[in-house]
Amino acid sequence: MAETLTAEQILEAAQEVLRRFGPSKATVVDVARALGVSHGSVYRHFPSKAALREAVTRQWLHRNHAPVAQAAKADLPAPDKLRNWLSTLFDTKRHKVLDDPELFATFSALVKENSTVVADHIAELTAEIAGILRDGVQAGEFAPIEDVENTARAVFDATSRFHDPGYSGDWAQDGIGKAFDAVCSLVLAGLTTQAGREVVQSH
Amino acid sequence: MAETLTAEQILEAAQEVLRRFGPSKATVVDVARALGVSHGSVYRHFPSKAALREAVTRQWLHRNHAPVAQAAKADLPAPDKLRNWLSTLFDTKRHKVLDDPELFATFSALVKENSTVVADHIAELTAEIAGILRDGVQAGEFAPIEDVENTARAVFDATSRFHDPGYSGDWAQDGIGKAFDAVCSLVLAGLTTQAGREVVQSH
Repeated sequence: MAETLTAEQILEAAQEVLRRFGPSKATVVDVARALGVSHGSVYRHFPSKAALREAVTRQWLHRNHAPVAQAAKADLPAPDKLRNWLSTLFDTKRHKVLDDPELFATFSALVKENSTVVADHIAELTAEIAGILRDGVQAGEFAPIEDVENTARAVFDATSRFHDPGYSGDWAQDGIGKAFDAVCSLVLAGLTTQAGREVVQSH
Repeated sequence: MAETLTAEQILEAAQEVLRRFGPSKATVVDVARALGVSHGSVYRHFPSKAALREAVTRQWLHRNHAPVAQAAKADLPAPDKLRNWLSTLFDTKRHKVLDDPELFATFSALVKENSTVVADHIAELTAEIAGILRDGVQAGEFAPIEDVENTARAVFDATSRFHDPGYSGDWAQDGIGKAFDAVCSLVLAGLTTQAGREVVQSH
């Protein structure tokens, strides 16, 4: 097996090992053992335990993000697209935590331990929001926006309760859907209207 | 001293003991010792260790909240009052964590361990927001709001990054003020404009 060992196989095995042993105990030797190879074979693909952990974490985020990235490309008016994107993000994360809370906790811990991974993930998400905002402004569906990147980050921040894993304890609560709708409506109202932005920007 | 021992004195001593020993180690006996009284004297005021911890936590939240409650009463147009209230809330918490990170961490842990304290605190904060929203609608400064309580909670949720202790690690970052302003402007724009709310509520 060692001859044809791919990075992809190592990442699969590493995810399984992390799930089984937890992030504090999982080692490169465990991953090598699960694959029936020497730890040298693993190190040929990933120079350190930290590099392997980071790669597994990025892969997990990337896979979970697929339906959200898809929602950013939906053929909808921008306000509907943004609402749909936000609810896809929320639903994806909510299902991850409800379906397999242990794996979610494991990867939340891994994400947190690597601030570059977090920063890159947030940059990817806010870039998708910014794209929707730009389309919406161009189509006259959103009011003109002075600083699109900054406003995209504001949309991301304002909806934190519905995507930040720190709030995952709230996601099975009664009324969370209503709370999500209320924040979405507030954010969309803020983006949609010219008059409001002028009133506010005069301060 | 035991004869004139007040609940207030016990709470002061308990805060000091919690700061010194940390929430996992502090005991009622430590509090009694700090006051030079028997633990029976403490139990006469607080029936259990849990009751004492809860009372200290509530007092801490209540004291820190004083400037925020004051901001809710400011003589300002509602949009300015809401922005001022939100920035007072953020500044108060930010200073608490930057001035004495250990005490902040201690009390954040204590708050988290008691869900009733959290719920009551959030209810108090959203009630203040709701009051500002009602005044603003009445004065024609905010658009009509169908469900004020729900919208007040949306304002609270949308600004979580700037008051939830879980984000306190972000509060000394460059650009946090700009991020706060962007979210505030988005929220206020959403509240201010009739047109936007109609567009959004039609969904």
